[in-house]
Amino acid sequence: MNALERACAEIVPPDRAVAEQTQRLLDMKTKPRGSLGKLEQLACRVAAMRGVVKPALPNKAMVVMAGDHGVANEGVSAFPQAVTRQMLLNFAGGGAAINVLSRLAGARLIVADLGVIEPLADDSCVRSLRVAAGTRSFLREPAMTKEQALQALAIGVSLATELADQGVDLVGLGEMGIANTTSASALTVAFTGAPLEQVTGRGTGIDDATLVHKRDVIARSLTRHGPRFDDAVDVLASLGGFEIVGLAGLAIGCASRRVPVIVDGFISSVAALAAMRIAPLSKAYMLSSHRSVEGGHRHVLAALDLEPMFDLDLRLGEGSGAALAMQWVDAALRILNEMSTFEAAGVSDSGA
Amino acid sequence: MNALERACAEIVPPDRAVAEQTQRLLDMKTKPRGSLGKLEQLACRVAAMRGVVKPALPNKAMVVMAGDHGVANEGVSAFPQAVTRQMLLNFAGGGAAINVLSRLAGARLIVADLGVIEPLADDSCVRSLRVAAGTRSFLREPAMTKEQALQALAIGVSLATELADQGVDLVGLGEMGIANTTSASALTVAFTGAPLEQVTGRGTGIDDATLVHKRDVIARSLTRHGPRFDDAVDVLASLGGFEIVGLAGLAIGCASRRVPVIVDGFISSVAALAAMRIAPLSKAYMLSSHRSVEGGHRHVLAALDLEPMFDLDLRLGEGSGAALAMQWVDAALRILNEMSTFEAAGVSDSGA
Repeated sequence: MNALERACAEIVPPDRAVAEQTQRLLDMKTKPRGSLGKLEQLACRVAAMRGVVKPALPNKAMVVMAGDHGVANEGVSAFPQAVTRQMLLNFAGGGAAINVLSRLAGARLIVADLGVIEPLADDSCVRSLRVAAGTRSFLREPAMTKEQALQALAIGVSLATELADQGVDLVGLGEMGIANTTSASALTVAFTGAPLEQVTGRGTGIDDATLVHKRDVIARSLTRHGPRFDDAVDVLASLGGFEIVGLAGLAIGCASRRVPVIVDGFISSVAALAAMRIAPLSKAYMLSSHRSVEGGHRHVLAALDLEPMFDLDLRLGEGSGAALAMQWVDAALRILNEMSTFEAAGVSDSGA
Repeated sequence: MNALERACAEIVPPDRAVAEQTQRLLDMKTKPRGSLGKLEQLACRVAAMRGVVKPALPNKAMVVMAGDHGVANEGVSAFPQAVTRQMLLNFAGGGAAINVLSRLAGARLIVADLGVIEPLADDSCVRSLRVAAGTRSFLREPAMTKEQALQALAIGVSLATELADQGVDLVGLGEMGIANTTSASALTVAFTGAPLEQVTGRGTGIDDATLVHKRDVIARSLTRHGPRFDDAVDVLASLGGFEIVGLAGLAIGCASRRVPVIVDGFISSVAALAAMRIAPLSKAYMLSSHRSVEGGHRHVLAALDLEPMFDLDLRLGEGSGAALAMQWVDAALRILNEMSTFEAAGVSDSGA
């Protein structure tokens, strides 16, 4: 059994009895019962995942995986492919949105190169976890081999194990890769059967003509590789990106270690959906942060049966929404850990 | 001209030209234009309020005003009236939800007694800004005199001035007062004409029979005092609570000093609506944090023409949602202050 198979086999469902005990603890706090709404549900869900009635404040890591996409050369993006690497350097320099939002969330930021075309210098603070120098254009051939897909999954599982061993107990899923909404849209159609027009959006901001072209590229790619796929790994190999597959492995690995995962927008949710298709129980360890502007996101969320916490019309990716949601997990667990009970504070309880 | 009149006269509209410059600055940051959605709009709105293109990270204060309500004696609440004072002691001890959430937001918490029945000891960390020992039951007589309403408004304006002088530039509106959803519901009907059934909810969690009774109390009170009122101050004097009137004054005072105000749930939004009815320009300095479970809240938000940032099914009050929203103002301003530009980071801009 390899690391991926072991991780899949090790996932246990979150502990419902723990969630009930956590709710009872919340009901003793000085507030009308249930009056903190979804924040209370969040506390209970995280407690059930961790298997601990009163989990400590989370030790957070935001993981941004990056990869280049061969399909970028088909003219589907507003930005040139070189931007993937430029943005990795920006992450390394601390100047991107996810740097700012990870700092605000008190999360350690881990940027991993799963396969950009040109590697960064060894002395950069980007982790080199490369599978290959970018995927191939899936309009013409499979994006990667099945072996490469399994390798990217194993990399994700391994990173999850490493983080869990270091005491990380809350992980955000972020990504960077020019043209990766094209890959994510194709994957969404393949995984969910949702209509192509509804799942293909403007990504970083393409114009009408490019959108028509992007949809055509995806339609032709689906005809080439589908509609029948052997399994989820076959779908990922045909249409994926290294960063998407790596994140799927990360989500599975986290679930196997009972580490809650906060899913970001469209791309990261597609990775989460791939994880669920490979390891169905992994879904129980996922929290959805926000609803993206990208139309495909709602189809993926429906397939995941996840309700986003908020909607800020974000469409950046990088893990930006997941970082914002980390603050709410903090809030939920602080309520659980720091609020007084009616008895301790000498406040009369209504019982309501 | 007294302090309230002076504050009303001093409010200037937020600076639209500044908002446009802030958006241009955001467009130079390393992200697709507009991709941070409502977070960008938030940055622009706060910049326009402050009159500064790139405002520094906010110096935050959460103000929780508390008062007792004579109408509590009509049997409209799930909690005994003594809980108002007990909760003030809980705030002073640091164990309430708003203590936890203010700490998380990095906001200074100011708890002010605008008129609970029994005052706290002088050595508590609750500010004594008392108007009287609770309001009278508005089922039987006006809740307070017009002079008391004007006094509570002046207290709010004065606190705003004090905070602004200390460099505070973001204020959250919080409140505590057993039975204050009864007051807020009556005020909502008087201010907006919304149907009583839609604006009267379960507050801290009353049962069906108490809800019917609560609606009856409010209906009879409105008949006694309305339907015609002299002006907004007359409405507040007839049906208000000292903490609600104090918060209205605080909102007006903040607007006069160009300090953005984050409105919390139902009660705090009614205070904001009262502020707008007294000083229409004050509305331009308000941000709505969340949509409360209390049915009346949506009517008040509609009258304020404010769109909440999020919806967590909160119904606690205390300023809890406003404290959570402070983190988003932080995020928006950090993006503005800390992100690299395309040029500085050497990232290619699509122009999209």
